Amino acid sequence: MELQYALELVGTFVFAISGALAVREKEHDLFGAGFTGFITAIGGGTLRDILLDSYPLVWIGDIHFLYAILLGVVAAFIFPNLLSRLRKTFFLFDTLGIGFFTVLGVEKALSLGVRPEIAAIMGMFSAVMGGVIRDTLTNDIPILFRKEIYASACLAGAVIYLVLSYLGLERSYNLLISMSIIISIRLIAMKYKLSLPRLD
Amino acid sequence: MELQYALELVGTFVFAISGALAVREKEHDLFGAGFTGFITAIGGGTLRDILLDSYPLVWIGDIHFLYAILLGVVAAFIFPNLLSRLRKTFFLFDTLGIGFFTVLGVEKALSLGVRPEIAAIMGMFSAVMGGVIRDTLTNDIPILFRKEIYASACLAGAVIYLVLSYLGLERSYNLLISMSIIISIRLIAMKYKLSLPRLD
Amino acid sequence: MELQYALELVGTFVFAISGALAVREKEHDLFGAGFTGFITAIGGGTLRDILLDSYPLVWIGDIHFLYAILLGVVAAFIFPNLLSRLRKTFFLFDTLGIGFFTVLGVEKALSLGVRPEIAAIMGMFSAVMGGVIRDTLTNDIPILFRKEIYASACLAGAVIYLVLSYLGLERSYNLLISMSIIISIRLIAMKYKLSLPRLD
Repeated sequence: MELQYALELVGTFVFAISGALAVREKEHDLFGAGFTGFITAIGGGTLRDILLDSYPLVWIGDIHFLYAILLGVVAAFIFPNLLSRLRKTFFLFDTLGIGFFTVLGVEKALSLGVRPEIAAIMGMFSAVMGGVIRDTLTNDIPILFRKEIYASACLAGAVIYLVLSYLGLERSYNLLISMSIIISIRLIAMKYKLSLPRLD
Repeated sequence: MELQYALELVGTFVFAISGALAVREKEHDLFGAGFTGFITAIGGGTLRDILLDSYPLVWIGDIHFLYAILLGVVAAFIFPNLLSRLRKTFFLFDTLGIGFFTVLGVEKALSLGVRPEIAAIMGMFSAVMGGVIRDTLTNDIPILFRKEIYASACLAGAVIYLVLSYLGLERSYNLLISMSIIISIRLIAMKYKLSLPRLD
Repeated sequence: MELQYALELVGTFVFAISGALAVREKEHDLFGAGFTGFITAIGGGTLRDILLDSYPLVWIGDIHFLYAILLGVVAAFIFPNLLSRLRKTFFLFDTLGIGFFTVLGVEKALSLGVRPEIAAIMGMFSAVMGGVIRDTLTNDIPILFRKEIYASACLAGAVIYLVLSYLGLERSYNLLISMSIIISIRLIAMKYKLSLPRLD
């Protein structure tokens, strides 16, 4: 459990950095970039918890998340060029992050007593809605609607976690397998520029 | 009551179809279209219930709504051309839908103990905010702000429902009359391209 | 306390006017302008209270706020040119408003038992998120992300309020000082076109 908590803080830190850097080419000042990092980091979990009436919200009940975000934003301020050059590394961290937060989101929803179908949606929301809210606020087409396979990878991983859990697989194995599937789908889709068919 | 429940599911199904089809000309993949259908179908009621602190949210407490949405999205995937050619039929269903969901939204808000003025706003929100959230996410000007009379028809119908209810009219008559007024305003406004004056 | 309540209603009235006038150059009809005024006036406090699970929402529990908004919207309808010519006066009222609502938001959050760091964020949200939601719905770049110092002034004032409160300053002095600082930062930034550095 301690490892999981540490990973949640690290994931929040990474999401805050990538959120703050996401507006580099825009007109944002430092405050706007920090705000964007904040929204990216907390948006998904906040939406999940509001939909499920689970209070206090994680970042309101535990101040460490706010400090993880502040650290991430400050890092983005001090080392923007370094961090931007590490774009590939960051993409990897971000992908690890969405895998991790998807599965944790599924587990949290289940622990609040909802049906597995709902838990799968909540897992996906935890991982991707921070970015969706960020993109909406900054007038971008949300990443969800762009061509790359992104939220659908999370949804697939969430469903697999639920199926394996139903089949009785031990939690730690299940976490690793489901996360790996999300991460693999995303990496393979990016590498080979795969995308889902369009509606036409 | 059984009829009402069936109509709510059908309305959700129709809203999901029109939401999924709304992004046809955009860059959305199948997942994005499905997500858009989902948001359109649940957005208004979800916002209403969060504002009124009414939990569990309808689609989280009753899984049938999620299946109605899935059915609608799948229908939009399989028969997009057929459904697009039925545009006029759909416009009619959508108009029936906003009339129906407005009045149900007013009733739900009243049952939670708020004042009639607030209930009228909640009725309108139930009907139109799913489309507003959808349009905002997809970077369109929300339908609410476009020229056609849309949300204002819902608000007018909500107020009429409240007045007739205050005057003691029996519920089923009131439902029919208020819905008919919303639907009539909307259809007449579309046919004769009526719009409210602008602020200038 | 009576003075504070009266000021809250006046502030809501002013926010509704500036929200309704904000869409003058757009395609909005009267309903859209009224809706925009409504969102601007209630958005920030509503988001704060949803995040903090504080129900009923202020404008749902006390109908006077809705009437203050209606009055503001009607005023914007009847006197748009007069009010637009008073732009400078309005800018001043709006600046007074964000100072006032920031400090009240901090106090409300503290009274609900959150940590001061969270209360500072909630104070800023109370003041600025109504405008952010408005700008997002109307497809503008939210004011938060534009060059002028705006939300950062609120955050600075919120932090100063908390520090002075921690140091034991009497509430009414603290309110006046913190509000004055927010208002001064904003006015000076506008006059000398100051802005925070960008991330680059």
